Amino acid sequence: MNLVLDHGYVKLIETYGSDERIIEAARQSTNKGFLGWGDQYKPGDEKLLRYLYTNKHFTPFEMAGAIFEIKAPIMVFREWHRHRTQSYNEMSARYIPLPDENYIPSTERVLMSGGANKQAVGLKQMEAGDVRAWQLNLQAAYDYAQRAYDWSLRDGVPKELARLVLPVGRYSQMRANANLRNWLHFLELRMDEHAQWEIRQYANAVCDVLSDHFPRTMALFKES
Amino acid sequence: MNLVLDHGYVKLIETYGSDERIIEAARQSTNKGFLGWGDQYKPGDEKLLRYLYTNKHFTPFEMAGAIFEIKAPIMVFREWHRHRTQSYNEMSARYIPLPDENYIPSTERVLMSGGANKQAVGLKQMEAGDVRAWQLNLQAAYDYAQRAYDWSLRDGVPKELARLVLPVGRYSQMRANANLRNWLHFLELRMDEHAQWEIRQYANAVCDVLSDHFPRTMALFKES
Amino acid sequence: MNLVLDHGYVKLIETYGSDERIIEAARQSTNKGFLGWGDQYKPGDEKLLRYLYTNKHFTPFEMAGAIFEIKAPIMVFREWHRHRTQSYNEMSARYIPLPDENYIPSTERVLMSGGANKQAVGLKQMEAGDVRAWQLNLQAAYDYAQRAYDWSLRDGVPKELARLVLPVGRYSQMRANANLRNWLHFLELRMDEHAQWEIRQYANAVCDVLSDHFPRTMALFKES
Amino acid sequence: MNLVLDHGYVKLIETYGSDERIIEAARQSTNKGFLGWGDQYKPGDEKLLRYLYTNKHFTPFEMAGAIFEIKAPIMVFREWHRHRTQSYNEMSARYIPLPDENYIPSTERVLMSGGANKQAVGLKQMEAGDVRAWQLNLQAAYDYAQRAYDWSLRDGVPKELARLVLPVGRYSQMRANANLRNWLHFLELRMDEHAQWEIRQYANAVCDVLSDHFPRTMALFKES
Repeated sequence: MNLVLDHGYVKLIETYGSDERIIEAARQSTNKGFLGWGDQYKPGDEKLLRYLYTNKHFTPFEMAGAIFEIKAPIMVFREWHRHRTQSYNEMSARYIPLPDENYIPSTERVLMSGGANKQAVGLKQMEAGDVRAWQLNLQAAYDYAQRAYDWSLRDGVPKELARLVLPVGRYSQMRANANLRNWLHFLELRMDEHAQWEIRQYANAVCDVLSDHFPRTMALFKES
Repeated sequence: MNLVLDHGYVKLIETYGSDERIIEAARQSTNKGFLGWGDQYKPGDEKLLRYLYTNKHFTPFEMAGAIFEIKAPIMVFREWHRHRTQSYNEMSARYIPLPDENYIPSTERVLMSGGANKQAVGLKQMEAGDVRAWQLNLQAAYDYAQRAYDWSLRDGVPKELARLVLPVGRYSQMRANANLRNWLHFLELRMDEHAQWEIRQYANAVCDVLSDHFPRTMALFKES
Repeated sequence: MNLVLDHGYVKLIETYGSDERIIEAARQSTNKGFLGWGDQYKPGDEKLLRYLYTNKHFTPFEMAGAIFEIKAPIMVFREWHRHRTQSYNEMSARYIPLPDENYIPSTERVLMSGGANKQAVGLKQMEAGDVRAWQLNLQAAYDYAQRAYDWSLRDGVPKELARLVLPVGRYSQMRANANLRNWLHFLELRMDEHAQWEIRQYANAVCDVLSDHFPRTMALFKES
Repeated sequence: MNLVLDHGYVKLIETYGSDERIIEAARQSTNKGFLGWGDQYKPGDEKLLRYLYTNKHFTPFEMAGAIFEIKAPIMVFREWHRHRTQSYNEMSARYIPLPDENYIPSTERVLMSGGANKQAVGLKQMEAGDVRAWQLNLQAAYDYAQRAYDWSLRDGVPKELARLVLPVGRYSQMRANANLRNWLHFLELRMDEHAQWEIRQYANAVCDVLSDHFPRTMALFKES
């Protein structure tokens, strides 16, 4: 399990397919199979894999995939769910009260700014003391929301309405399944410096896990 | 524009295709076109439309569609976005502060319970007075979150982090595009009594608008 | 490998997920896992699996899947590829000459008629002798096409143009990947008596293989 | 109607959305609308459109689209249908006999070779006389197939089996619907010099029609 942010994680449930299987799928077109990766003296199918990747022949990469369990703030899931080629099963506050876990960004994270982070442009520069004050205020707001949530549930408000006060910094949990082509597209967008820092941490964790299971494909991804 | 909940709406931007176009698409299979709807004496293509619908030959219904603008609480959008066949463009709190509009359920809404609303089973029964107290508490929680949000933005916290305190009862806005087949699937799931009451109100509004533009198809939907 | 028609097959390459994993995915909503299938005295998670299936909560079935290699006539692939949720890698006559294997329907197959086979209604009734004559004519047409194909290739016509004469009864080969939800949808449409007999044989073979790997889910499918 | 190849065409049925609508959709993120295209003195929303396009923010381009009717050889449809984001309704030889129209490549087309056409590499060079001989042989093969088809239908073979002899050079017809993002992706792949010449002619025709209706977006496409 790869820990992400203050309470989140990315946990691999299962992969299917392999770098070899991608070659086999591509070789359907010529009715051949996997011929071997080759070595320093005699190049083999790593050449075909590179050709597929660099020429954007991505359908063979749909013959492999991975399922993850992810715990992340709702705000991150809101971005994640825009990837409509993934399958999702998420915890639902209609059915169970969401546990009182909320994301507090670290001081380092808040002080990052400028560079690609266009969202921060034009703001006055915060200092470490300001951030600590903000973190306390954020925690106080989370606490207020949780009290309102608890009161609502205790007073008989249906869970599906009691949840209205829950902040988008609240953690939720889901499983997500995608084929490798779609994971690569997710990583391309979400490891980009324009993506919000939080989802980038999740994308990095997904990338690390995929690198263990599809080392040759992921090496090509990292090169590109 | 159809008003929904206390601050929301469903607004039609555009439709394309028509009941006739659906017939034309279906007739591709036999290289014929639309032959006329017929009347009480001589049945016409309404018979084919009914055949397509009741036998689940849904691909011709992909040759029509509609685009809506929707304003709804984040909680509703979280459910809506699980429909991965629609296209979305939503307001983003990374780029602008979300206006301080939040959903307060009406007293009648909160007092609904039992029946299909399994989420409410086992709760103590609220009375109108309890609901009014809850509505005040909910408003107070929304106000607290908004103050925390305002302070954060004023103190220089990037918008993308300041938003962490925003409740899922906060209104957001989006455009959504789907073909008619996918809208019908959305309506089937979201007008169902097991769907949460809030998204059902949006689904009802979408259904009303579609009924004006695809009257024969929607009549078949309502029958089924 | 399951043999289908006169030269075709369905071969399982890999499955992922399991009946248990489907339960785990569904339990994300309440933050619980798989609790055990139960037995005759104490029902367990087969009850939840049945609930999911019969109430059309199909997203958990997206957390399992299977990849097959299939050899079938082009005509069958033309129907198959209308299932746009599957991933495909097919042999290509742009890159290699397609081997001279073509589908000759058996006498029993040709003599089937009436019943759900509306395509055959109104035809004069063939007898076994007629069918044998037709099979010979069909083989002669395949042979003529193959000679034209061979001549074209030998005379320097690019493969991508030489293929124009190839009949849709010619065998091709592909791999196909889909999640279990989408395989079930494929089977529902293609095992139906209105589907053409040829693709039904392939669907039956897919169903047999899936039954070995997802026995509880497939039992529910067969009941429905 | 744009004529393509010897018997085919691309005919626009309908478009929806517009360059302006794409801007409106993109502006959902900041809750603004279309502000005007600007002119040589004062740049306007063409700058935003360019930003969206060049930075691959493609979701707003899903808020426009087009439906076409296309007549093309089966071989072309086999490539076309690999685009799984389009909706299709095609003529079916299960239901009607396919008319006897078949694709004969022009002499110029056959003599093209080398360059990007890797499929032709290594072939002996044909001359115009060879091509004319090939065209006659191709027509003879088409004629033989048609006679076999006619005989089968006359002898009572079901249409769904009689079609086995039909060559992939036979014309069929369909309607296709896609949003603009997906049409652009189709054009990117199918106007590429590595695409087969035949489907490139169809892609060029689609591109021409889209250019009339989405001039600013298509200008960006052509630049890229």
